[in-house]
Amino acid sequence: MSDGKIQGLLERLAGLDHELHGGDFLLSWRFGENTIRSVLLAARALEEMARARVPARMFESGLGLAIFRDHSTRTRYAFRAACNLLGLMTEELNEETSQISHGETVRETATMISFLTEAIGIRDDMFLGAGHVYMAEVARALEESHAAGVLLRRPAVINLQCDLDHPTQSLADLLHLAERCGGLEGLRGRKLAMTWAYSPSYGKPLSVPQGVVALMTRFGMDVTLAFPEGYDLAAEPLAAARHFAAQSSGSFTVTHSLADAFEDADAVYPKSWAPYVVMERRTELLRARRTAELKDLEREALAENARHREWTCTRDLFARTRGGNALYMHCLPADVSGVSCAEGEVSEEVFERHRLDTYRQASRKPFVIAAMILLARCENPAAALRGCLVRGRPARIPPTS
Amino acid sequence: MSDGKIQGLLERLAGLDHELHGGDFLLSWRFGENTIRSVLLAARALEEMARARVPARMFESGLGLAIFRDHSTRTRYAFRAACNLLGLMTEELNEETSQISHGETVRETATMISFLTEAIGIRDDMFLGAGHVYMAEVARALEESHAAGVLLRRPAVINLQCDLDHPTQSLADLLHLAERCGGLEGLRGRKLAMTWAYSPSYGKPLSVPQGVVALMTRFGMDVTLAFPEGYDLAAEPLAAARHFAAQSSGSFTVTHSLADAFEDADAVYPKSWAPYVVMERRTELLRARRTAELKDLEREALAENARHREWTCTRDLFARTRGGNALYMHCLPADVSGVSCAEGEVSEEVFERHRLDTYRQASRKPFVIAAMILLARCENPAAALRGCLVRGRPARIPPTS
Amino acid sequence: MSDGKIQGLLERLAGLDHELHGGDFLLSWRFGENTIRSVLLAARALEEMARARVPARMFESGLGLAIFRDHSTRTRYAFRAACNLLGLMTEELNEETSQISHGETVRETATMISFLTEAIGIRDDMFLGAGHVYMAEVARALEESHAAGVLLRRPAVINLQCDLDHPTQSLADLLHLAERCGGLEGLRGRKLAMTWAYSPSYGKPLSVPQGVVALMTRFGMDVTLAFPEGYDLAAEPLAAARHFAAQSSGSFTVTHSLADAFEDADAVYPKSWAPYVVMERRTELLRARRTAELKDLEREALAENARHREWTCTRDLFARTRGGNALYMHCLPADVSGVSCAEGEVSEEVFERHRLDTYRQASRKPFVIAAMILLARCENPAAALRGCLVRGRPARIPPTS
Repeated sequence: MSDGKIQGLLERLAGLDHELHGGDFLLSWRFGENTIRSVLLAARALEEMARARVPARMFESGLGLAIFRDHSTRTRYAFRAACNLLGLMTEELNEETSQISHGETVRETATMISFLTEAIGIRDDMFLGAGHVYMAEVARALEESHAAGVLLRRPAVINLQCDLDHPTQSLADLLHLAERCGGLEGLRGRKLAMTWAYSPSYGKPLSVPQGVVALMTRFGMDVTLAFPEGYDLAAEPLAAARHFAAQSSGSFTVTHSLADAFEDADAVYPKSWAPYVVMERRTELLRARRTAELKDLEREALAENARHREWTCTRDLFARTRGGNALYMHCLPADVSGVSCAEGEVSEEVFERHRLDTYRQASRKPFVIAAMILLARCENPAAALRGCLVRGRPARIPPTS
Repeated sequence: MSDGKIQGLLERLAGLDHELHGGDFLLSWRFGENTIRSVLLAARALEEMARARVPARMFESGLGLAIFRDHSTRTRYAFRAACNLLGLMTEELNEETSQISHGETVRETATMISFLTEAIGIRDDMFLGAGHVYMAEVARALEESHAAGVLLRRPAVINLQCDLDHPTQSLADLLHLAERCGGLEGLRGRKLAMTWAYSPSYGKPLSVPQGVVALMTRFGMDVTLAFPEGYDLAAEPLAAARHFAAQSSGSFTVTHSLADAFEDADAVYPKSWAPYVVMERRTELLRARRTAELKDLEREALAENARHREWTCTRDLFARTRGGNALYMHCLPADVSGVSCAEGEVSEEVFERHRLDTYRQASRKPFVIAAMILLARCENPAAALRGCLVRGRPARIPPTS
Repeated sequence: MSDGKIQGLLERLAGLDHELHGGDFLLSWRFGENTIRSVLLAARALEEMARARVPARMFESGLGLAIFRDHSTRTRYAFRAACNLLGLMTEELNEETSQISHGETVRETATMISFLTEAIGIRDDMFLGAGHVYMAEVARALEESHAAGVLLRRPAVINLQCDLDHPTQSLADLLHLAERCGGLEGLRGRKLAMTWAYSPSYGKPLSVPQGVVALMTRFGMDVTLAFPEGYDLAAEPLAAARHFAAQSSGSFTVTHSLADAFEDADAVYPKSWAPYVVMERRTELLRARRTAELKDLEREALAENARHREWTCTRDLFARTRGGNALYMHCLPADVSGVSCAEGEVSEEVFERHRLDTYRQASRKPFVIAAMILLARCENPAAALRGCLVRGRPARIPPTS
């Protein structure tokens, strides 16, 4: 892509108002459409600049802090890569080797790790009703300390997955989907099947399907959410999905038939999650450290899962999609039958055919995260990126691709 | 603050001789007053530059190594933020995943992690008689390897808390105190109460009170150290405090009355620590891994602590300070009654009133650490910082505050 | 060294063709001599530039990922220092806090951590037949994802020690040796004794002796490999050593006499390793988690080791070397009798006399690693480094040595 095309993206970015400056990205459905569009435009510009080796170091110094309360490979990496792209050094707050267990308050810790920090990325998806609350508490503490002049900067809190939403994933998914359909406008009338799928593990987070249906319904898509009875999701994102579908003249349908969902779908996203009530119970038991009952819950939940082994993405099922040629999506890692487990979300044949596509889908995430940080921290992100183009490639001889 | 004001700080910095260049910052009382003043001036200049987004990247590349032999949140963060401000990438030496347990000597490890290192920050405060000795051994090894041409650079060792001193804390405290009193000159005749306070934990380090009394006595303050009988501190910093008080026409008083200490105080620093003899015994038992006796010691020490629950900073006690309006200081995290523990160092009411002040106190630490590294590694730190001002803000459009 | 001398090194570098561009450094013997020479020239240039504080930041941003499947201090540090020198931020993939255990494939993980990555350094030396295979699998996955356009860049995989080779060590060793002998040409006809030595531990990797004999034989040296009967090494590197010795008119001799090996040696490298058959058995048992049998194996292997306590580098033995003045080499940490163990690879007297030399030997490693990354990622490394000289030292006032 030439600089001219990057300039085109930046012109469109400059023409949009967004609500991120000085704030956080916690839940996608709390933002207007222009904010979503701005993040996507900035992400595309950043990706094209990276491709062309145009440095996007907005920051001469500063830190990006990561707090992971659950395992992570790709999101952890994506956050670090995003920070690095903008010139921020990353650090991870390890709650085990810190003094946090000494009864320190969230608001205090939030300030203590923010004196020269520009962004704080948090993953907290284990406890229903807790992850988003925690992130909002961190954000309020930063707001207070910045207002009081304690913090020179107001770091942006970036939701790297909570109990309600996984916006860095869903916006990367949207970017990926849009590029396949000729832009956001091309999504209108396309059918997306966000479906449950069988997995031999039982406690997978709900935030991916929730985030996906609440986001994709905004652009006129026909979104079908399919799951076996009982595998319900949280109310807030589903309400958002219904609202957005009505607003965008798309649709949002809930079904309990996997076949119906795949029928004529342009894109399918079969993925395991735990029933809301199981996660609720699990949250209670984890908090109370009731280990024996946790074992019981796991056993019961796995038995219930096992009743739905036919919810798996096979070649035959996939043949039902539009032209048998839908975009297969997954946030990875997928439970691939015969590869990472005996029986899982998807057959080896289907996964292998679409594997590089899922990698491409994942490749958007660093740029989406960088775009969120950029919009939250720079008053005029389009001008800031234009500045990078004007400074241009450094005089030094750049490494090759 | 305008560049003119930063220039003013740098002029004063340029006018002072200091002893840090090519060396380490281990114990504050081993340095002359001009060195202390230089660190404070450089820290203030760096903070103002950060506020104005003037980059202070002295280093094009290079590493800042952290070695933490005890838990840490704020000092760990402060060291990393300081290194980042100057352009150094930080790494932490994790003694568990390294080969250090294989009988490797300190002098060898010190060299192996220093080939492109500019600063090594160490926290080692658990064992009496060990922390400072360890840091001095690292420093000697670096000196030897640099003299032999093995190391291209002589990294500075920065004491991030040892058994004797906690200079990055006490200098941040001094900076904070001075800014409240109209500069270092404003400290003359002001009363500081450094006092023990009750905590439900028993083994808190002695280095904070030791470092504070040995430093604040240098600037003509009336420093009162108050603790219950038996809660003695190490001899060396107390001798330094007496010496400096005499030299600066201030005073250094030891009392066993908390009320006397708070009477008319301009600043109070109520904080728990362990009796010297308990720490001495604990050191022996930890070394010998005598677990049962460690449990006994803990029980006895907690029982002794519990006899001094009235050593807590309540509203009534605070009312005794000058105008009831003293500066409340704490290195954090504080044991706040009813918040982080049932009964602790300070009442919730007092702490909450002064909470943002303690955050502001903590905010100085990254700049103090950066100032120490700058002075240790740059022959002419004032000229180096002036160079940053002349290069000025980069052409790029900077992020906002 | 003046810029003129650096220019000289770069001219020689520019004159050589090498095979690294766009690829990986896995096994030294798979590369032609010009590639080895290019790495050494680039490493020397980078070291001289670091000495002169000429920044070598090739990369404006980008990541260097480290994967350590065994403990490490110096190689871990060296990789990070190397990345930092070139402008890359380092991260470590911690397989325990990642989702890798969830049945994710190597090829998937390799791509997920590579979107903005320029180099991946891997240590995997515990399992015979596994380390090199794993690295090659990662490299293939990166190749596939780059070819498919998923990865903007093709990160270089750098072998930080596998079951077959330890090239960042052996090339650092070669650089060190060459500088002592007046360059690579000075190695011709010199005798190197790579010998087994007694250690109270039993499972030390084989990659160092394997890498050393397969590399030093390429430059006309007389390489003697000495070990007690039964302490055999892997076949591939020994075949390479025989081949290279014939080709370079040097020699490669295997003996079971330590004294013969030291006789008139110009350099000695006494170091413990485990017998190939023991490592083979250990690999099987570790894989099968057969703990009891592992204990048995350890006991037997230690008993066998103990029969060869006389394989230790004493003053008397050292006196047999050429003029009693050979270069003593070790990859560190050494098992020094009376220091890190009761009886070990080398006497305290011999080690202490040569200690700083072993530190100097270790000091080459960051530059060798940086050179490998540079050659793998830059089409014209000599021009890239010349660009650094032309841009010259930054206008800012640099820190001192």
